[in-house]
Amino acid sequence: MLEAIDHVGIAVRDLDAAVERYRTAFGVVPTHRETVDHQGVEEVLFAVGGSYIQLLRALGPDTPVGRFLARRGEGVHHVGYRVADLAGTLGTLRDQGHALVDETGRPGSRGTTVAFVHPKAFDGVLIELVQEP
Amino acid sequence: MLEAIDHVGIAVRDLDAAVERYRTAFGVVPTHRETVDHQGVEEVLFAVGGSYIQLLRALGPDTPVGRFLARRGEGVHHVGYRVADLAGTLGTLRDQGHALVDETGRPGSRGTTVAFVHPKAFDGVLIELVQEP
Repeated sequence: MLEAIDHVGIAVRDLDAAVERYRTAFGVVPTHRETVDHQGVEEVLFAVGGSYIQLLRALGPDTPVGRFLARRGEGVHHVGYRVADLAGTLGTLRDQGHALVDETGRPGSRGTTVAFVHPKAFDGVLIELVQEP
Repeated sequence: MLEAIDHVGIAVRDLDAAVERYRTAFGVVPTHRETVDHQGVEEVLFAVGGSYIQLLRALGPDTPVGRFLARRGEGVHHVGYRVADLAGTLGTLRDQGHALVDETGRPGSRGTTVAFVHPKAFDGVLIELVQEP
């Protein structure tokens, strides 16, 4: 049911510095930059194979990534898995009693539809399910 | 220089329960199981697209993953990036002054050669570089 690791979402304090560091160290090139206001983040994506490295800057302290940075510091914030059928996957998880953050899909970046699964459902990992346009 | 997200390494307390949960929830099938004594872990891999989800169990409390679990709890322990030239990548990182855990490659699972980069080098993310056999 999972098609790919869509992305690894990494919370950073200084987005531009982190982008430059990845570019210089690993020879990767930013392929997308977007501010997603309703998620409270600005993100930069590097395409790596069929996946993305996603660097995330919080738009303010009172956002999910802002609170994560205050509580845990910089690091991996979530893992995104690409699915073909987001609604079906959410239905399966709900039927199995897993805690969801989003009961239905909502707009993500790049025109995707996304939904988050609660970290208590999968060993402390915040999972984002991503369906491409 | 990065070819793919090789894997996301997730530290769990109950490996068998976590494997069953991923299998049931996401329809993924374990493709590899290995105990890597010198890293102090038992791991299970699920192939997802060109990457793996890697579930990790600590072989004891005084291991890197055991200490991670005690300090931070379950969750993403590291991100593995696939590289074609591990020695060259390590050389580039060293030349740029990034802190390395491993100065040279060492044996990983599946016959790979791996090296870890210190989390302070890349925004709190423990990075494992992976060269396939």
